[in-house]
Amino acid sequence: MLNITLPDGSVRQFVDGATGYDVAAGISEGLARNALGVRVNGEVRDLHRPIDQDAQVAILTWNDPEGKASFWHSSAHLMAEALEALYPGVKLGIGPSIENGFYYDIDLGEGRSISTDDLPEVEKKMLELAKKKSQFERKEVSKADAIAYFTEKQDPYKLDLLERLEDGSITFYTQGDFTDLCRGPHIPDTSPIKAVKLLNVAGAYWRGDEKNKQLTRIYGITFPKAKELTEYLERLEEAKRRDHRKLGKELELFAFSEKVGAGLPLWLPKGTALRERLEQFLRRAQIKAGYQPVVTPHIGSKELYVTSGHYEKYGADSFQPIKTPNPGEEFFLKPMNCPHHCEIYKTKPRSYRDLPVRFAEFGTVYRYEQSGELHGLTRVRGFTQDDAHIFCRPDQVKEEFLKVIDIVLYVLKALDFPDFTAQISLRDPENKAKYIGSDENWEKAERAIIEAAAEKGLTTVTELGEAAFYGPKLDFMVRDAIGRKWQLGTIQVDYNLPERFELEYVASDNSRQRPVMLHRAPFGSLERFVAVLIEHCGGNFPLWLSPEQFAVLPISEKYQEYAQQVYDQLVQSELRGTVDHRDEKIGRKIRDAEVSKVPYMLIVGEKEQAEGIVSVRRHGQGDVGAMPIAEFISSFQQQVNDMMDGKPATTIH
Amino acid sequence: MLNITLPDGSVRQFVDGATGYDVAAGISEGLARNALGVRVNGEVRDLHRPIDQDAQVAILTWNDPEGKASFWHSSAHLMAEALEALYPGVKLGIGPSIENGFYYDIDLGEGRSISTDDLPEVEKKMLELAKKKSQFERKEVSKADAIAYFTEKQDPYKLDLLERLEDGSITFYTQGDFTDLCRGPHIPDTSPIKAVKLLNVAGAYWRGDEKNKQLTRIYGITFPKAKELTEYLERLEEAKRRDHRKLGKELELFAFSEKVGAGLPLWLPKGTALRERLEQFLRRAQIKAGYQPVVTPHIGSKELYVTSGHYEKYGADSFQPIKTPNPGEEFFLKPMNCPHHCEIYKTKPRSYRDLPVRFAEFGTVYRYEQSGELHGLTRVRGFTQDDAHIFCRPDQVKEEFLKVIDIVLYVLKALDFPDFTAQISLRDPENKAKYIGSDENWEKAERAIIEAAAEKGLTTVTELGEAAFYGPKLDFMVRDAIGRKWQLGTIQVDYNLPERFELEYVASDNSRQRPVMLHRAPFGSLERFVAVLIEHCGGNFPLWLSPEQFAVLPISEKYQEYAQQVYDQLVQSELRGTVDHRDEKIGRKIRDAEVSKVPYMLIVGEKEQAEGIVSVRRHGQGDVGAMPIAEFISSFQQQVNDMMDGKPATTIH
Repeated sequence: MLNITLPDGSVRQFVDGATGYDVAAGISEGLARNALGVRVNGEVRDLHRPIDQDAQVAILTWNDPEGKASFWHSSAHLMAEALEALYPGVKLGIGPSIENGFYYDIDLGEGRSISTDDLPEVEKKMLELAKKKSQFERKEVSKADAIAYFTEKQDPYKLDLLERLEDGSITFYTQGDFTDLCRGPHIPDTSPIKAVKLLNVAGAYWRGDEKNKQLTRIYGITFPKAKELTEYLERLEEAKRRDHRKLGKELELFAFSEKVGAGLPLWLPKGTALRERLEQFLRRAQIKAGYQPVVTPHIGSKELYVTSGHYEKYGADSFQPIKTPNPGEEFFLKPMNCPHHCEIYKTKPRSYRDLPVRFAEFGTVYRYEQSGELHGLTRVRGFTQDDAHIFCRPDQVKEEFLKVIDIVLYVLKALDFPDFTAQISLRDPENKAKYIGSDENWEKAERAIIEAAAEKGLTTVTELGEAAFYGPKLDFMVRDAIGRKWQLGTIQVDYNLPERFELEYVASDNSRQRPVMLHRAPFGSLERFVAVLIEHCGGNFPLWLSPEQFAVLPISEKYQEYAQQVYDQLVQSELRGTVDHRDEKIGRKIRDAEVSKVPYMLIVGEKEQAEGIVSVRRHGQGDVGAMPIAEFISSFQQQVNDMMDGKPATTIH
Repeated sequence: MLNITLPDGSVRQFVDGATGYDVAAGISEGLARNALGVRVNGEVRDLHRPIDQDAQVAILTWNDPEGKASFWHSSAHLMAEALEALYPGVKLGIGPSIENGFYYDIDLGEGRSISTDDLPEVEKKMLELAKKKSQFERKEVSKADAIAYFTEKQDPYKLDLLERLEDGSITFYTQGDFTDLCRGPHIPDTSPIKAVKLLNVAGAYWRGDEKNKQLTRIYGITFPKAKELTEYLERLEEAKRRDHRKLGKELELFAFSEKVGAGLPLWLPKGTALRERLEQFLRRAQIKAGYQPVVTPHIGSKELYVTSGHYEKYGADSFQPIKTPNPGEEFFLKPMNCPHHCEIYKTKPRSYRDLPVRFAEFGTVYRYEQSGELHGLTRVRGFTQDDAHIFCRPDQVKEEFLKVIDIVLYVLKALDFPDFTAQISLRDPENKAKYIGSDENWEKAERAIIEAAAEKGLTTVTELGEAAFYGPKLDFMVRDAIGRKWQLGTIQVDYNLPERFELEYVASDNSRQRPVMLHRAPFGSLERFVAVLIEHCGGNFPLWLSPEQFAVLPISEKYQEYAQQVYDQLVQSELRGTVDHRDEKIGRKIRDAEVSKVPYMLIVGEKEQAEGIVSVRRHGQGDVGAMPIAEFISSFQQQVNDMMDGKPATTIH
C-alpha cells in the first residue's frame, strides 16, 4: 500500500500503482474531473502516471500555475498536430508554455509561409482535434530509436535537440497522429482545451542565436472555457489601451531619442511635473520620518567597487569602465547608490546613540541591458531609485522595518493601490553556509521581518531560500486596476557591505561594532513606478499628479486677456494648465477639455471678467459654481494636500 | 614733434624722444610721482623709454592692473637680488608677477635649502635694497652675448630659456648688482617698494615638467604702503577663515572620499539641505517665469556628440568613452545638458506661436580636470548646473534677455550679493568670419543684449572679441563680502546648436525657420555657487538656507520628553534643527548654541511644558518672548518665505 500525504496534511492509503487520478477520484469526483496533473514530492507529473512510493501529493487543476503550464504546454502540442495536418512536412523546433499561453517555433520550408490571416484556420483545426479527446501518451525511448524516428521524419531541429540529450532520459509524447520529443508533463487528454486564440506570428532564431536559421514563432493561448478566453482578450485590449509607452507618448510624458540612446528616457515637461511631484511627496514623507537627503555623484572609482565587491561582477555584459588621462585610473557609472552612502557613513565617527542614520537619495543609476530587452520605462538603462540606506544597530532592525512598512503603506494608499501582498524572503535553512553574517543576526532579522509584517497586518507569502546572500528581505507586489501583478517596493537587510566597508559604531560599552544596513525603495524606481501608475490609472492621474490640472476657457476672443490673467495667477500658485486660445465656440472647448480629461475647466466671460471670478466645471461632474480666483486656488491646494496625505478626497464647490 | 593722444581723447605735443615720464609730468606732478609704467598703443612699456612716434598713451599707476603687474614683476627681481646677496651662487628659473604678488623659482644647489623661517631675512634684505632707489635699466643684447653672460654665471636655467629665444629680441634688465634675462617692462626704480611679505615656499618642476629638476618656488607680495600690506594680510586671514573647504568640513556640508574619487563631492545631509533649498528656490522662480523642468540622462551616445560637434573635441584629456557589449556602441558622460535639450525640442513640431519654450534642468555634468587643478567645490569633476535652454524666435531675444536678467537679479538680491557687474561679450568686429550665424542675427542679438542690460540699469563692461564663436553673451561677476570677485551667472546666445540639430519652427508664413537658443545659468553651478556663498557669508547662512535653524534646549533632564515633542512638531513642519540632550546647565547650552550660530534657540522648562509653549531666543539678539509652538512655526515660515522672495527681513517677536 502507498501512504499518500495530501496538502492539508492528511494521509490516505492507496494500492500500489495508483495514479494521481486515483488520488483525485478518492477525494472527490469533481476534482478528478478537473485534474490536469499531479505534484508528487515536488515534481509535476502526468495525472495517469503511477505513483511508485509513499509521497506528498497535490492534485493540480486550472487554478494552479503548474496546472495552467501543463494545459498550455499540451496546447502547443495540439497546435503542432494541427500544423502537421495543414502544412504537411512542417519542421518543428521547441514549443513551451509561457507566462500567458504558449508558442511553437516552426519551419515551413522553402517557399511556404504563414501569416496572422492563416491563424483562424489553425485555431479551427485545433478545436476539431481537441474534441477527439486524444490522450497524451508518455513513452520512454532509447536515444537510437529517437534519432531513427526524427531522421525518418527529416526534422533537423529535433535531431539537434537529441544530440544534447543523454540516453535513458528521453521521452516521447503522442496524442492523435502527432508525436513529439518532450519531457512532459501533459494534461491527460485534449478535451479540456475548449477555447483557442492564436495571437501572433514572429521570427525567432533557432536556439536564440542569430547565426542560426530564423524560424516562425506562433504565439497562442487556450482556455477550458470560452468565457475565459473572451475575458482574457478583453484584458489584453485594455492593457493595450493602457500601455504606458502609448500613453506616455500621447500625454507627452516621456520620449526616447536614438541619438541620446536606447533605454535612456528623456522626461518631457509634463512627465517631469509628475515625476517631481512624486519625488516631493516621498521626500517630505521621508524627512518627517527622520531620513536625511544626501547627493552623490553618478560615477565612482574602481577602488569603490573593489571594496563593495561589485568590481568582480562587472563583466563584458556591463557598461565598460571610463578611463581617464591618468593611466590606471578608472571610473564606473554607478549601478547602485549604496557604496557611496557607505562612504558618507564613514565621514565621521558614529556612536550607538546616533543610530539609526538614514541617508535618502533619488539616485540615478545605470545598468546595461541588451537592446532587445528594453521596454518603455519598465526596462531601461538608466533609472532613478527612490533609494535610502538605514544604518542601525541589530536591535533596531524590527523598529526600522515597521517604519519603512509605514512609508510603503502610505505610498500605496496615496497612489490608490489597495490590492497588494508582501513576500518575505528568508534563508535556505538547509544551506546556511552560503549566507554572510552571524546566525544570531540572521535569526534576529528574520524574526524582526516576520513580526513587523504581522504587526502591520500584511498579507504575506514566505519563501525559504529566496533571501539574498547578504540578508533577508521583504518585497511588495501590487495588483493593478486590470489585475496584473507588479513588483514594486523592497526592503532588504544587508550584513555584507558594512563588513566590506568596515563600518563601525561605538557601542555603549565603548566597543566597536558593525551596524546593520537596510536598503529600501518604496517605489522601486521612479521610471518603473510611473510606468505602473500610468497603466494602473490608464492615464487618469489623481489630481495632485495630473500634469494638466486646469484649462482656462474664454467664451470668446474678447476675454482672452482676462483668461491670460487668470492663467498667470494660477501659474504663480504653481498650478499647471493651459488657456484655450482657439477661435472655437465655448461648447466645443468644454467638450475637448472633457475628452482630454482636464480635471478643472475655468470658464471666463463678461460676468467673470467684471467680477474677477471664474466659473468652475469639474471633469465628469459639470458646473460647480462661480468663485473668486483666490478661492479656487486655495480650495484646489487644500484638495491636493489632502490627496497627498491620503485623506478622503474633497472637492471644490 | 610727437602727437600724444591721452585716454580722455585730448592730444598733446611733446618733443621727439619724450618718455612716458615726460607725458606724466606734463599732466601733473603727482601723476609723474606715482607713475609706474606707460601703455603706448596698447603695449605696456618702461616709463623712461622714449616714445618714437605719434601714439595713444596712458600712464599706469598702482591703480591699474598693468601697474600692479609691473610693480610685482620688479619685486620678483628685487627678491632675486636679495637672494643672490644672501645665497651666493643661487641659480634662477623664472620670476613672474601673478594675480596677487609674484614668485621666483630658484635652485640653491646641493645641500642648501630655504624654509619659511628664512624668509624674514630675505624680506629685510629686499627692503634694504629697495631703499637704494636702484633704477631698472633695460638693455638689448645679442644672443651670443647673453649666452656668454649666463655661461660665466653658470646658470643652466637661463641658458635653457635663451636656447628658445631668437636673436634680436633679447633684453636684459639690471638693478643694483643684479642682472636678469627679461622682456620687461619694469617700474622706474626700486624705491616705491615699501612693504614686503614673502608668503610661502613650495616645490615646482622646471618648466612644469615632472621629469625635470624640482626647484624651490618662493611666493611673495609687495605694496607701495605698509598699510596696504597689513590690510592684505588681514584679508588673507579672513579668506582662510572663510575658506569653503574648511567651513564645509566644520559645518558638515560636503566631503570628498578617495574611494569615490577626487573632485566628486559627496553632499552630506546639511549640505544637501542647503543645496535642495537653493534648487527649490530657483525652481519655483523659474516655473513662475514660464520655464518647464525636464530630466535627461547623464550619458549620451556618440551620435549625439557627433551631431553637437563636441565629439571632435573629446581629447585624451577628457573622460574617455564608455563602451558596451555592443561593438561600436559608445556613450559619453555628458559634459553639458544642451544636446539632450535639443533632442527634447525635436520630440514634436513647434510653431512660432509656441515659442519661446524654456527647458530647465538641474543637470549634473562631468568634465575631467587634472587632480592638481581640483579645488574644493570651485573646481570639480562633477557638478550640477542650474541650466536652462530657451528656444525662441530672433525677435524674442531681447525680451528673453530681460526676463533672464530679472531672474539673475532676483537670485543676487535674495542671496545678498549687492555688489556685481556684468560683462557683455561681443564679436571682434575686425574678424566677423570666425563666427557662425548671419550678420543680421548677430547685430540684432548684440543690440538686444546691450539694450536689455541698459534697461535693467546694469553696470557693464563691454568686451569686443570675447563672444563665443556661436554667439554673444552676458556674464555676471559678483564681489563677495571681503571684496573678491567671482564669476557666477551667464546668459549666452547660440546660433550653432540649432543649426547642427536642424531645429525648426513653423513661422507665421508657414516657412520653416531656425529658432535661436539661449543658454543660461544664474548660479553657474550649485557647487561653485555654494562655495562662493559659504565664503561670502562665512558660514552664517541666511535663515532660509541655514542647515541648522533651531536648537531645542531643555532646562533639565525632566523636560527632555517635551523637548523631543517640540522637536518632532518642528520637523513635521520641515524645519531643520536639533535637541540638546546633554546633561549641561541651560546657560552652557545657550552659550554653545550662540557660538554655533544657531539662529533660534527654543528653551523649554516647567512653564513651557505646562502651557505648550516655547521661549524663543534669537542668535545675537537674546530673548524675543514665549509663544505657542504653532505660532513660532508660522512666524518662522513667514520669515523664510519673505527672505526667499527677497523681501525685507522680518523677525519673530
